[in-house]
Amino acid sequence: MHKILILGIDGYLGWSFALYLGGYDQYEISGIDNYLRRDMVAEIGSQSAIPIPRMTERLDAYRSHFHKNIHFMRGSLTDYNFLYNAIKSIGPDTIIHLAEQPSAPYSMIDIHHTIQTHTNNLLGTLNLLYAIRDINTDIHLIKLGTLGEYGTPGIDIPEGFITVQYKGRQAHLPFPKSPGSFYHLTKVHDTHNIMFASKIWNIRATDIMQGVVYGVQDVVVPRVITLETRFDFDHCFGTVINRFLAQSIIGHSLTVYGKGAQKRGFLPQTDSMKCLKISVDNPPLPGEYRVFNQFDRTYSILELATAIQEISKEYFGITTNIEHLDNPRVEEEEHYYNPENNKLKELGYKPSETNLHDQIITMFSVLLTYKDRILAREHAILPNIRWRR
Amino acid sequence: MHKILILGIDGYLGWSFALYLGGYDQYEISGIDNYLRRDMVAEIGSQSAIPIPRMTERLDAYRSHFHKNIHFMRGSLTDYNFLYNAIKSIGPDTIIHLAEQPSAPYSMIDIHHTIQTHTNNLLGTLNLLYAIRDINTDIHLIKLGTLGEYGTPGIDIPEGFITVQYKGRQAHLPFPKSPGSFYHLTKVHDTHNIMFASKIWNIRATDIMQGVVYGVQDVVVPRVITLETRFDFDHCFGTVINRFLAQSIIGHSLTVYGKGAQKRGFLPQTDSMKCLKISVDNPPLPGEYRVFNQFDRTYSILELATAIQEISKEYFGITTNIEHLDNPRVEEEEHYYNPENNKLKELGYKPSETNLHDQIITMFSVLLTYKDRILAREHAILPNIRWRR
Repeated sequence: MHKILILGIDGYLGWSFALYLGGYDQYEISGIDNYLRRDMVAEIGSQSAIPIPRMTERLDAYRSHFHKNIHFMRGSLTDYNFLYNAIKSIGPDTIIHLAEQPSAPYSMIDIHHTIQTHTNNLLGTLNLLYAIRDINTDIHLIKLGTLGEYGTPGIDIPEGFITVQYKGRQAHLPFPKSPGSFYHLTKVHDTHNIMFASKIWNIRATDIMQGVVYGVQDVVVPRVITLETRFDFDHCFGTVINRFLAQSIIGHSLTVYGKGAQKRGFLPQTDSMKCLKISVDNPPLPGEYRVFNQFDRTYSILELATAIQEISKEYFGITTNIEHLDNPRVEEEEHYYNPENNKLKELGYKPSETNLHDQIITMFSVLLTYKDRILAREHAILPNIRWRR
Repeated sequence: MHKILILGIDGYLGWSFALYLGGYDQYEISGIDNYLRRDMVAEIGSQSAIPIPRMTERLDAYRSHFHKNIHFMRGSLTDYNFLYNAIKSIGPDTIIHLAEQPSAPYSMIDIHHTIQTHTNNLLGTLNLLYAIRDINTDIHLIKLGTLGEYGTPGIDIPEGFITVQYKGRQAHLPFPKSPGSFYHLTKVHDTHNIMFASKIWNIRATDIMQGVVYGVQDVVVPRVITLETRFDFDHCFGTVINRFLAQSIIGHSLTVYGKGAQKRGFLPQTDSMKCLKISVDNPPLPGEYRVFNQFDRTYSILELATAIQEISKEYFGITTNIEHLDNPRVEEEEHYYNPENNKLKELGYKPSETNLHDQIITMFSVLLTYKDRILAREHAILPNIRWRR
């Protein structure tokens, strides 16, 4: 049995990955969470559009469905003794670290949220690196970074490293990072710390620069209400496709930040799951630190808004406007963007055949069921956190 | 009057800079410290070779000597409310941030010291950035980084940024960082955070990649015992020249880590002071983030050991051996190294005419007076913190 420990198993990707792996016999799954995501979403006055049960119910439902257990422990990565003892007792082959505070706007609220994001993400990951060093350096660490670590540098973005020439000499160096929020910065800091720890302690690490994930769990597991993963649509934890869908469903305009020509990498949730499994099944060598750019393709924000506007009209009879807001962020609104993504494909990743269009229709159908829950928190959709003072 | 706030005023560079500025009429000086450096040096069982009085005595001596006051406040940068109120009440034009935990080995002791270094350095600097944003973004932030942020990349090292070409396009990007300890990593994290804060909040910032500073305070202020700055010689807080001098004085071998062909940038303490003053007097534009590589020239560790061995013999009649230890660090021991340092020279920096040779003789003479204090802590000189587990 391949023992997998999922950190942040109660989150959007963590729970989805537990479900995804449930469909395979060869994995024994453990999970850790401190329910931080639930607390933060509640703090900003929102809720998951899809209702999610408490963890004990989730675990019961999982057992009923898959006829196997998840070994779950509640706790925080910022508590070294807890983390050490948990990993020691579980004895994982692979640890997937999905336990970071994932919201750029949340990290920009004020000094306290900037510090909280640094403490949770950076110090948690440092504890994790030390625990692996102290317990078993053969454990494969899979860490979720973000494509946002690179920013929008104006040149193609290779996977992690680039050859630089200067004054007649050349060197193969980490790709320079230009992230756009304190959240993204913590991921950059993690990347530097993991690269260093991997080098000095011979830790095998996969650092995943993932694009924005969209979609609801729908491939491996049929829609069982107690098994659903969360779906956030608020301005902090709802990514752009989620927010546009929620806005369309409750009859709001789709609010594009600035010009909307900002491009980002995106991938359907099933592709994220497939890619994570490929990383699990193809660990790096001892002491190897590798970077995967994990996404399907790039879209501009305006392209996404237009697609959702058209699908709303054509399939659901809903007419929506597109509205441009003053951009609350500081970011380039028109730029070149072309990250590379070959390494996962070389290991077998085939982008899903269901395209963005089909995925949006599925998401729309599911979310329509929860229109009331979105309406109940409609005040949480528009941005109120600004990067500039 | 130009109001200058020195963070870490009780430290080696902080106190030296207060003395250095004391010789000029145009500055009004404030300082903050929490005495962390004293505590850490005591924690590892060492002491400053040159005895330093407590802060109240230092301040009295300063007043007697310069006929002016330093406005001093005791506290930690990790306490946002303290820091905010201190800066608000002082109203500085320039803040010089010398308040970071500066030891690579100390940061590598164990998880707790890695976390402490991250908390003190990274969270302290975040608090500082927010305080500047909230009080007055016209304040010029001068932040001490380190040449070690760049590592030893194998190509010339420009000041902060480099033009990168890839697949037919080019971009001017932050120079990729490859630091060699968790201490150095915290400085890299700071650099990314400051660059971002400068961009979104229009903060004017000078990020100084400084080489290793050597020397005792001796140019502006005559040697007055109650005014002396500290001189550490232990394996954590004593830099390599300091350790070699201490070893020579008490008749130990000079212990070189590994081959000793590691090259680093160095500068005399007076040059560090001159350069800091140049930064103070030539602030960047509002919102400008600039990087200075601040050093005089590069030496290999073995060159330094040999120079100290020769001076010991020729001027002080002390015969010393050079001994190569297993390198406790993980670092390249033979490498290309050529950082550039033009920007400060363009602003008027002229390297001191007193060369390394003369500086070492001065340091040696001063330290001989304190041979007993070095002998009393001789156990603290040899390294016992290893990078690998």
